[in-house]
Amino acid sequence: MQSRGTRNIKLLLAYDGTDFSGWQRQGDERTVQGIVEGALEKLHKKPVTLTGAGRTDSGVHAAAQAANFYTDIDSMDPCRFVPALNSILPADVRVLEAVETRQDFHARFDACLRTYRYFFIVQKEALPWDLRYAWHLRRQPDIKRLNEYARYFHGEMDCTTFAVPGDKSKSRSRYIYGASFFYDGNKLVFEISANAFLWKMVRSIAGTLIHYDEKGFDPDAIHGIIESRDRFLAGPTAPPEGLFLWRVEYYRE
Amino acid sequence: MQSRGTRNIKLLLAYDGTDFSGWQRQGDERTVQGIVEGALEKLHKKPVTLTGAGRTDSGVHAAAQAANFYTDIDSMDPCRFVPALNSILPADVRVLEAVETRQDFHARFDACLRTYRYFFIVQKEALPWDLRYAWHLRRQPDIKRLNEYARYFHGEMDCTTFAVPGDKSKSRSRYIYGASFFYDGNKLVFEISANAFLWKMVRSIAGTLIHYDEKGFDPDAIHGIIESRDRFLAGPTAPPEGLFLWRVEYYRE
Repeated sequence: MQSRGTRNIKLLLAYDGTDFSGWQRQGDERTVQGIVEGALEKLHKKPVTLTGAGRTDSGVHAAAQAANFYTDIDSMDPCRFVPALNSILPADVRVLEAVETRQDFHARFDACLRTYRYFFIVQKEALPWDLRYAWHLRRQPDIKRLNEYARYFHGEMDCTTFAVPGDKSKSRSRYIYGASFFYDGNKLVFEISANAFLWKMVRSIAGTLIHYDEKGFDPDAIHGIIESRDRFLAGPTAPPEGLFLWRVEYYRE
Repeated sequence: MQSRGTRNIKLLLAYDGTDFSGWQRQGDERTVQGIVEGALEKLHKKPVTLTGAGRTDSGVHAAAQAANFYTDIDSMDPCRFVPALNSILPADVRVLEAVETRQDFHARFDACLRTYRYFFIVQKEALPWDLRYAWHLRRQPDIKRLNEYARYFHGEMDCTTFAVPGDKSKSRSRYIYGASFFYDGNKLVFEISANAFLWKMVRSIAGTLIHYDEKGFDPDAIHGIIESRDRFLAGPTAPPEGLFLWRVEYYRE
């Protein structure tokens, strides 16, 4: 059995998801968890488990994923894990911060608020370095209407409409803190915060709202499909390249 | 023999060089010229040759590469080549502009000024999406001293010091319009303009100036190595990911 180190270290990670098969370690796939655990193993000379706050999908990016691991390296200031890990890690995953946290901190179970941002390019033509990190719509959506749709995402909600068919979650109810559309430079952003999300839920919501705007549907229609709990009334799932896990928050650390 | 179309079309192209073996078509390598010629062949249903202004190296990006090809598609407004090609091309190369130009316009031989930008990250830690398009120095260079070095790059110059060993150019003299360092947001930029450049010359100059600054050498030393025409006095070649072909200019189009 793997012995657990004495200090609990919290990491903030940024990654370009393009060349990763998502967060979660799985066999020989190139995953973020797998690559960072590999770097931790190199430092510790034994396997170390890394727990992440959000299990992002294949192709999805993170601006600030939270994670934690236990270490028995006692001689090192925790912030030294930043350059130590970055010197081992490939350029598409970076450690932004490393701090010692309370013994029982759990990056996934203790997270109380997760924020995702979905980026859209709304110009006809786009640059290669923008296409890597956004969904190219090639048209100007109606941002006022999109925000009317977004208003319905608030409070305790059964999110079945935006789950994948056959979603295995015990409950599909989530507490949504809010959702909105705004411009960041020349990119349109959809931001949504919740206690937690179902698998592919953000991309399903983003794809649906864009699809409904394109069809010119009334905001009421969004209320209707949320109530319906019918996945087949939702629009297509937005592609992964536009999505970033943006922020994870904890009541205490 | 390949028949030449009747209209000469000038393109502006942007590409992320990371996954390309440079501009120039060569066998089965994934090159920008090869990929764009493939898209042109698909549109024309026969091979079409594309001539580029600058033969960028493997891993080097372009914000505005100029190129031209002859077409016999007479029914189409030239600007329609932009969406037509972009719908075929992969996301890492984009056509920004397409215009009809004079019959004898040659993207390479007629270019009178080429500008390159080399981007540096000077913070200790960097984000994945910045590392893809810049060289990570991990230290703050002396920008005043770098600009004192850069002043020596001006006017007609024998550039042998910054050529690759055994460079086969007929003449290694180039006319440099100017070079300077400045900040663009949190990135340091080295910009240099010349009538033309030798192979790997910009990366060799960028690497040398950064190396000399790190050593704290006097600006005079730069004058000395330019005069020496000795490649072995120059510093290491800067990596390709920081370099962008930024602009190509013509006396007339």
